[in-house]
Amino acid sequence: MNQDGHFFLRCPFFVSVMGQASSAGCNVENAKKQKINSIVLVLFVGCLLLGGRKTPLVADTLPVAPGGPFSRVYLPQNAPVGEDRFFGPSSWEQMNENPEHNAAFHQKAGGPSWFYDGVGWRFAEARAWPLEEKNPFGTRTDGKIEAAAVQTQFYGNALGVSVVDGIVYAESDDMFAYALNARTGQLIWRTSPVGNHLMGNPIVKGRFVYLSAGGVGFNFANVVRYRKTGFAVRGMDVSYNGIYALDRKTGHVLWHHGSLGEAMPTPAVHKNVLFFATGSGSVHALDRRTGRSLWTTRLKGNDNMSSPAYSSGRIFLAMAIPPRLYSLDARTGKVLWSRSIRGAANTGMGDVSPAVSRGVVVMDTVTRPERKGKEVTLQPVIVAFDAKTGKVLWEKKMRRGPRPPAFKGGVPMIAGHVVYVGSPVNGDYEARDLFTGKRIWRWSRMSSSRSAPTLVDGRLFIAGEDHVYVLDPETGKELSKRKVGGRMGIISPTIVGGTVYLANSWDWIVAMPLSLWNIRTAQ
Amino acid sequence: MNQDGHFFLRCPFFVSVMGQASSAGCNVENAKKQKINSIVLVLFVGCLLLGGRKTPLVADTLPVAPGGPFSRVYLPQNAPVGEDRFFGPSSWEQMNENPEHNAAFHQKAGGPSWFYDGVGWRFAEARAWPLEEKNPFGTRTDGKIEAAAVQTQFYGNALGVSVVDGIVYAESDDMFAYALNARTGQLIWRTSPVGNHLMGNPIVKGRFVYLSAGGVGFNFANVVRYRKTGFAVRGMDVSYNGIYALDRKTGHVLWHHGSLGEAMPTPAVHKNVLFFATGSGSVHALDRRTGRSLWTTRLKGNDNMSSPAYSSGRIFLAMAIPPRLYSLDARTGKVLWSRSIRGAANTGMGDVSPAVSRGVVVMDTVTRPERKGKEVTLQPVIVAFDAKTGKVLWEKKMRRGPRPPAFKGGVPMIAGHVVYVGSPVNGDYEARDLFTGKRIWRWSRMSSSRSAPTLVDGRLFIAGEDHVYVLDPETGKELSKRKVGGRMGIISPTIVGGTVYLANSWDWIVAMPLSLWNIRTAQ
Repeated sequence: MNQDGHFFLRCPFFVSVMGQASSAGCNVENAKKQKINSIVLVLFVGCLLLGGRKTPLVADTLPVAPGGPFSRVYLPQNAPVGEDRFFGPSSWEQMNENPEHNAAFHQKAGGPSWFYDGVGWRFAEARAWPLEEKNPFGTRTDGKIEAAAVQTQFYGNALGVSVVDGIVYAESDDMFAYALNARTGQLIWRTSPVGNHLMGNPIVKGRFVYLSAGGVGFNFANVVRYRKTGFAVRGMDVSYNGIYALDRKTGHVLWHHGSLGEAMPTPAVHKNVLFFATGSGSVHALDRRTGRSLWTTRLKGNDNMSSPAYSSGRIFLAMAIPPRLYSLDARTGKVLWSRSIRGAANTGMGDVSPAVSRGVVVMDTVTRPERKGKEVTLQPVIVAFDAKTGKVLWEKKMRRGPRPPAFKGGVPMIAGHVVYVGSPVNGDYEARDLFTGKRIWRWSRMSSSRSAPTLVDGRLFIAGEDHVYVLDPETGKELSKRKVGGRMGIISPTIVGGTVYLANSWDWIVAMPLSLWNIRTAQ
Repeated sequence: MNQDGHFFLRCPFFVSVMGQASSAGCNVENAKKQKINSIVLVLFVGCLLLGGRKTPLVADTLPVAPGGPFSRVYLPQNAPVGEDRFFGPSSWEQMNENPEHNAAFHQKAGGPSWFYDGVGWRFAEARAWPLEEKNPFGTRTDGKIEAAAVQTQFYGNALGVSVVDGIVYAESDDMFAYALNARTGQLIWRTSPVGNHLMGNPIVKGRFVYLSAGGVGFNFANVVRYRKTGFAVRGMDVSYNGIYALDRKTGHVLWHHGSLGEAMPTPAVHKNVLFFATGSGSVHALDRRTGRSLWTTRLKGNDNMSSPAYSSGRIFLAMAIPPRLYSLDARTGKVLWSRSIRGAANTGMGDVSPAVSRGVVVMDTVTRPERKGKEVTLQPVIVAFDAKTGKVLWEKKMRRGPRPPAFKGGVPMIAGHVVYVGSPVNGDYEARDLFTGKRIWRWSRMSSSRSAPTLVDGRLFIAGEDHVYVLDPETGKELSKRKVGGRMGIISPTIVGGTVYLANSWDWIVAMPLSLWNIRTAQ
């Protein structure tokens, strides 16, 4: 029932790798290139012997019409040149780049001035809705709250962007992935290899960028199954799900690996292994160079948006229905420990990506629904676990509030000895001591807070609703704010040098210089 | 709970109509044009007075980035010219054009020779998968049977094409609608005004083409609702659903009307009224020129693919969960009668579009699931009702067979005093007397038959799996067959003059001359 299949060792893959590796301008070093070519040649000959038929390129084996609207666009003239190629980190290995979820990066001194001064631009993705529009497109039919969830889940960006070597990578629920020049905002490539929603924060390592495909829907067979058994595979037979590995330079598909359930969570990469979790409750480890399966662990429930955090040889992620946090051995997939949170309700746990730092795992969820008339309220709780043993270190309640649509948690971020968590039910934002759970401050400005903030140079940046706010991380005092427009649900600001990079439910990628907030940072 | 909203009387609509009507080459006659312009001007001024703000064009108010992959492409140079404009009917008012579901059209003598000799071409839609590929894209992960359902419902064409005035119109689950030159197969326009699947057979009347947007998925709230209440709205909050009215010449959106549930079934048009049904069990009548709501009737259940048939002042359609056939007064929306079919199972009734002719409504569904070990079998039954009273005229069983994925019925077609119905469970195709139900013949060739056939000049054309077969309609004898490739689930051949027009789950539009089947017709 929970079987996730895979796509591997098809001849076209190897032909494609060879075609790419031997093409001009390949970013694989020469030694590696020769080795790959030798391996590929052997496998290619094997393929011919086994298959004996003309083997098309991988691109030809995708359901994408050449020259049609979904075919890849590649504009190498827009790629960064010179020093611009050394902007930002050189890989992006998990959601928000690290298990703390703090997507902040300094630039070493010596680069061009835009590194520090910042840049500003806006890029309209395929289903862009004017950022000035207060209401989402479907408001008249669905009401503003539900229409905003639809616009996020079917038209815009769910998570923030990745910035690697001067390029901004974004995945959108408009079914496209994008690579933009971080300085100019110009399109380098765009591709839609699968007719499905791309909810992830792109993972980038070596020559690859990894996309995760999957949407929020259920097919009717799983609606019936849920009634009978209390279990349903999310994403099963509602489009094709799984991981797509692209050449980060060109957007060309190098391999893909299908899964039965949705692959909405962002994968994590460590060395040559890629980890991802699905709507069928399975967790997979693949060889990230080939897509070959290394291990699969079948857990119970659905992983919606709980992206695995990799830390010290373990991965941490949570499932919904039933709600449970897991720690797995990254080498074997063995479950080392698992814990639920008392009263966890709805999809809360399967939505939230745990943050890990200094041997502590922080998780939160909504709990204990209470109905008063038509209104249902929920109680968010934050729990810290010992990363090694799963022992509960502390558990704290946040204030109760009305049930939000869609994503039901706040993505925690850890910096130093402090954890920052937003509340989806009433917009409270809290800073707590990582080791004791003691509340340091609370900030209440929005009606719903779900995204991880970003801490840079003594300033805390929070993207929520249509603004980016800057707080003093010590006191929670609001120092500045700036309107972006549209809506940012669980978008974390990605801050590199002097620029804040954002994605948006209204299907935009936006760069804004730090100077716009009129706050002084101690860079 | 079942409330379907609407989008109407927004100022941008009128501005857009004015923009279109006053542009060069508008296909509205001059008198009408002046009248429209006057009305529009009054309303536009009213708009300005009420709104007092800059009102964008409708195109600007859709979530589509100008110049992006979803933006409309319009190539007027490819439109038919001269006599080519008089090929096929001049409107297309319901699924398969008529309540009998027989999409066959003669050409009056006197036109160019291609009208009679036929043409052959293939057009790759946006997610085209090579027609030569036997297996759908996701076979390795999902298995062939489920992957084929996914490829139909998320990538390719669900129903056949419409041919009006020398233009082929198609809707695809790739989220695009297409207008092609019927002679050349060249693209005239393509557009994707909404990020949703387009499952219909395009309705064309006057200056409009009408698209119906909606997919098969359920959101989690409705999964939970189904467990609690046995009812769920299909398509709710999984993208934006509803009707999109385009300028048939340019593909420009003139108005749209949202619905909470999916609008997968094809609408029907009669005079100035458009009827459509949704996944929330509601049936709507709109003024087809403006999208203004005339009446809404709330029934129980989901309409999946049961397209309303209009006949003699009534509309006929069926719902699933609970399964029931309805006859509604087209003027008022009042339910005149409704009947279930004993033992109706799964989504059967809500999938099938009833056929109506000579005062008889023909409906079928799968019934009475039986489990033997892991295998579930179903019993299809065909029922004829008196169109006026709903009285059962006859009920006949077809042979039991294994449960198919997705669409669970055969779309019936009536010609003269004979009804033709395929079986989804074992591929039987049967001809029965319309008034007695007596079986005339049975043909068994495919493993699943779901599409309505097309009868022209004493020959019955059946599209199924990867072939089009030609049978003698009197005897059921197979006379000829021709491979198309790909898969045709509930695609009816649209036959105009000497050409068979087809759509395909592999996301293609195909024209083939009748002569390919090497059979003589008495045209």
